[in-house]
Amino acid sequence: MTVLSEFSLIKQFFADMTSSRDDVLLGIGDDCALLQCPADHVIAVSIDTLVEGVHFFTDVDPTSLGHKSLAVGLSDLAAMGAIPAWFTLALTLPEVNETWLQGFSQGLAELASKHNIQLVGGDTTRGPLTISIQVHGFVEAEKALQRNGAKVGDKVYVTGSLGDAGAALRSRLDNWVDEHLNDEDMSFLQQRLEKPTPRVELGQQLRGIASSAIDISDGLLADLSHITSKSGVGARLDLAKLPLSTALEKVARTTSEALALKSGDDYELCFTVPPSHVAELEQALAGYYTEIGVISSDDGIYTLDDDNEWIKLTGTGYDHFK
Amino acid sequence: MTVLSEFSLIKQFFADMTSSRDDVLLGIGDDCALLQCPADHVIAVSIDTLVEGVHFFTDVDPTSLGHKSLAVGLSDLAAMGAIPAWFTLALTLPEVNETWLQGFSQGLAELASKHNIQLVGGDTTRGPLTISIQVHGFVEAEKALQRNGAKVGDKVYVTGSLGDAGAALRSRLDNWVDEHLNDEDMSFLQQRLEKPTPRVELGQQLRGIASSAIDISDGLLADLSHITSKSGVGARLDLAKLPLSTALEKVARTTSEALALKSGDDYELCFTVPPSHVAELEQALAGYYTEIGVISSDDGIYTLDDDNEWIKLTGTGYDHFK
Repeated sequence: MTVLSEFSLIKQFFADMTSSRDDVLLGIGDDCALLQCPADHVIAVSIDTLVEGVHFFTDVDPTSLGHKSLAVGLSDLAAMGAIPAWFTLALTLPEVNETWLQGFSQGLAELASKHNIQLVGGDTTRGPLTISIQVHGFVEAEKALQRNGAKVGDKVYVTGSLGDAGAALRSRLDNWVDEHLNDEDMSFLQQRLEKPTPRVELGQQLRGIASSAIDISDGLLADLSHITSKSGVGARLDLAKLPLSTALEKVARTTSEALALKSGDDYELCFTVPPSHVAELEQALAGYYTEIGVISSDDGIYTLDDDNEWIKLTGTGYDHFK
Repeated sequence: MTVLSEFSLIKQFFADMTSSRDDVLLGIGDDCALLQCPADHVIAVSIDTLVEGVHFFTDVDPTSLGHKSLAVGLSDLAAMGAIPAWFTLALTLPEVNETWLQGFSQGLAELASKHNIQLVGGDTTRGPLTISIQVHGFVEAEKALQRNGAKVGDKVYVTGSLGDAGAALRSRLDNWVDEHLNDEDMSFLQQRLEKPTPRVELGQQLRGIASSAIDISDGLLADLSHITSKSGVGARLDLAKLPLSTALEKVARTTSEALALKSGDDYELCFTVPPSHVAELEQALAGYYTEIGVISSDDGIYTLDDDNEWIKLTGTGYDHFK
């Protein structure tokens, strides 16, 4: 499309997001944006794509979709301990539907405003509904949280509760209903799937405390296994400690445990902390995290079974190509 | 998809592109890449999407497509005078076709290597074939070429030849054949459409010389009109001076002129230079550009007709939503 109509689209629906920051020397409307990186920081970048029918349902509320499209990137910044700064949006639309654009841009703008992240560039094209967002943040290079820093003896933690988004997805895909869940519970789970909360502030507070971190997009086991394999370690988990929401506490333990371990889209953080930093963690993040295990020298992730034997936890998260 | 298989895909086909630069502190394989911006420079970023059936034909050679996917972004950096540094790739594929991936990644790698631009992040998802690439480059803020700097009396130039890609597109879409064009000509035009040459070095040489610049992706008239409207000026063109390739010189002048003015995808640069810098331009870029007109105080872009009257040139480039 011509830049003129691209710009007019962006101007109409996305204007709220294009002018909040002084470090954007040139924003939308030229061949490139010009961005000023602060001295003594490096730039953290991540790009994520959401495709209709793969990552979200066709009937999803566009406001929630706008929120989630940015939330997944913010969650990546959170996992590095980075401060959000700028994002770009590549939006492929089957048609120009103003109602949809209004909702989508509103969800995007609200979350962008909350985290002071500015839209600095975009491309709007016609085609099957696909949303790619690249986020950019700042972090001091030596303080960035990476996946490869876990050491044997470090404790393993997660923020928030696990398995909620997976429960909502399962209820929709498999018509799964649990008699113990009421409408309020179902609505909570749905919200967790559609409007996840990226743990941006928590990630920043973990700088200098955590030895490794990752966000849980593919499921705890899959994501923790990235930490253990990158760090050349294993882990032992106490599944009784997996943090569950009030809603998931109501369902059978085997179900909630499987969801907490293997379902994705929660966008909580999983991180490790050396024993020497545990007191500091408690001071910084009290109430926002749960200890679930310890880093070990095993090859893999283990838990105690009912016979008090260590068994290897297997099974991975969602894989689009399997 | 899980990061594991995303990474294995990238590792297999895109490994050549992931390790050329020292300013990439952390590349592919964590939640974010960590990138070091040089002092005294700002970052220039641009994101572009190519959608199958909209921006390229289903039967396009994947190597050409890989080339073009990066070329459009490099062309944006060229238009700012920026030095290429890093790119990210959001690749949505209907299936994992190794032959296709091999070709696509090869075309991408060759162009990336030529411009020393490193792949620092990606997301691979299943869905309709869609390619979004964000490019990042460096430029000194005060030397970046923008669209808004043209002044009355500045000369208007373009690099290369115009209308070639449009001719190839027309021959494919409308079964347009011109009896004067031989196979070699058609092959040249096809190449211009499928494997455009981003004018990266020329753009950098224009820093401190040009008062404004843009790349010609939507057609000369559409793109020059961005310069004139952003700069609050007009332009007067001498259409006899429009640079044509040897191939397009063979077809009827009315056809080649229309293609040169209104068809896109050439990825040449259009730029303006104050009279005081023309000698410097000649020294820096001799042979790589053509003077086609002058910036005026008109409201719009004009040319002399056969009766020696100034007429306004209208008509825009390609617009996906019209």
